Amino acid sequence: MKTELNADITNALQAIASREVRHVFLIACGGSLSIMHPGKYFLDRHSSALTSDVYNGDEFVTRDPRKLDGKALVILCSQTGTTKETVRAATHARKKGALTIAMTLDPQSPLAEAADHVVAYQASYTTGIPIDAAESNYGVLYMILAGLLRQSDTIDLVPPLLSSLSHLQPAIDKAHVQYAALFDTYADQFKDAPVIYTVASGANYGAAYSFAICVFMEMLWINSQAIHANEFFHGPFEVVDRNAKFVALIGLDETRRLEERGREFLYRFGARENVLALDAKDLDLTGIDEGFKGYLVPLIFFDALWKFAYKLAAKREKIMLEDRRYMKKISDY
Amino acid sequence: MKTELNADITNALQAIASREVRHVFLIACGGSLSIMHPGKYFLDRHSSALTSDVYNGDEFVTRDPRKLDGKALVILCSQTGTTKETVRAATHARKKGALTIAMTLDPQSPLAEAADHVVAYQASYTTGIPIDAAESNYGVLYMILAGLLRQSDTIDLVPPLLSSLSHLQPAIDKAHVQYAALFDTYADQFKDAPVIYTVASGANYGAAYSFAICVFMEMLWINSQAIHANEFFHGPFEVVDRNAKFVALIGLDETRRLEERGREFLYRFGARENVLALDAKDLDLTGIDEGFKGYLVPLIFFDALWKFAYKLAAKREKIMLEDRRYMKKISDY
Repeated sequence: MKTELNADITNALQAIASREVRHVFLIACGGSLSIMHPGKYFLDRHSSALTSDVYNGDEFVTRDPRKLDGKALVILCSQTGTTKETVRAATHARKKGALTIAMTLDPQSPLAEAADHVVAYQASYTTGIPIDAAESNYGVLYMILAGLLRQSDTIDLVPPLLSSLSHLQPAIDKAHVQYAALFDTYADQFKDAPVIYTVASGANYGAAYSFAICVFMEMLWINSQAIHANEFFHGPFEVVDRNAKFVALIGLDETRRLEERGREFLYRFGARENVLALDAKDLDLTGIDEGFKGYLVPLIFFDALWKFAYKLAAKREKIMLEDRRYMKKISDY
Repeated sequence: MKTELNADITNALQAIASREVRHVFLIACGGSLSIMHPGKYFLDRHSSALTSDVYNGDEFVTRDPRKLDGKALVILCSQTGTTKETVRAATHARKKGALTIAMTLDPQSPLAEAADHVVAYQASYTTGIPIDAAESNYGVLYMILAGLLRQSDTIDLVPPLLSSLSHLQPAIDKAHVQYAALFDTYADQFKDAPVIYTVASGANYGAAYSFAICVFMEMLWINSQAIHANEFFHGPFEVVDRNAKFVALIGLDETRRLEERGREFLYRFGARENVLALDAKDLDLTGIDEGFKGYLVPLIFFDALWKFAYKLAAKREKIMLEDRRYMKKISDY
């Protein structure tokens, strides 16, 4: 049972405790950026002291918001710690007098070097060794933010977060078992799809975004977009026909009714066999605090969906998820 | 020559001048939401007093951020003023003690009724009568925000904005002439495309978003996504091959190099005949203030691209841009 924040998180928070933090910038690129969306959702819901923004690394540097000053905290994330745009963002933020915390797998990486404080996390795919999801990018980000909130707003959500994180990996393991047959069916159904959309809102939006751009587009070369579950009704839904393929995430946060409405529409005007809907109500979330279910469900969905990606890959012409045309193959773009 | 803010904007700003505003929520759905992105870009660049968020109407109501309080200003937009989610958002915001300004074509609409203050704008497509782009949703939003900035930050960008807006319509008219042949060529080239992406960053992102979801998806039933020009390199670019179709916007704001990089990649690994790139450097922007070019270019791009939509529609099986499967045809979803 996890009862304390990780030491590097505690150290980083202690080091910044004396500084007044007014605004939090959540900065990364691609998959690492996706976790920042639920991070902001968490802050929006709970903080009256802190405002926040989520930006891609290069957008942040060039946009150069006026709020980036000595009262800003900039949290950056890059798996390898080598993402150039994110490293540049850390350097830029420090130059502006802001505090910086780097989240990375590698505490010796360029991003770690560029930031004031480093917080390590784990990812199973780099090592092949299973990890505890509590120590994943999502888990660690929530720990940083709950710790920050305790300092800025004197709301202490750290204990329920830690106990919830302690029960996360078993929930994920059960989800894998639960979804196995469903994923087999939908991998067959989706294997020739030229386009697959993802739909979500609130804390789930980041997972939908990441699955669309990093899994469908990057790894499987399938056209995709993460559609916000309500924005769906203001344009995107016109592409829906009986053949349109969707992955719909239905979570447990306050925006759930938006996601439910999206699913209902898809079931009615699309075809059930073309809508892979994951509903968190079906999950066994034993031990996860009621107030944290909404925040942790996207981790479960995203982790579970990896298995779907592998099953889909195995049935498509492009067999290896690891194959790329450009990323890390061509260096001068 | 425009020398004063519209009377309804001046009235709304005067009415809120006595209140302390700390945070601005920019709330709408679909195409109306798209204009809020450059609005936030403008605030980010110029305001040290105000923070801001851009949210879909229903996301805003359900997320219910803690910052939505008596020091929040909520600017909402809906063309007809009947968008249910946006009307609900106005009601919710007032209940929370926030100030509300509704932007709409119809000052007697439900949204206008639900908000504290109403600001009218114009759109040519509803009446068929050409308008001055200064009075469009974008123009009016910038006027509200520049006026607000004058009150909150004592930076007066109203005079250069107004003189720039006065020169906007001639710049748009010239762009239409300039792009006519280009759009003919690309309408031929894109007419059978199952997927067309849009790419942009900074102030242009909203125009790319709107063109993707409201024009390609809603009106033309073409699969699409607005890809952020740097996020493009963190996943989405792997779908690029010689046949992939893109509309790339290259503007004049601080993020320009992100958009240039995207275009270079697409030219190199895609095919020039499949990349419709609009570069604002080619536009005649006579009379538009240097500091406002970046903000006004997306209006020019978006207005110009309407002609491309019509040309594309004329060559596709689905002939009428007005045809819908669901929107305003089915009422109970």
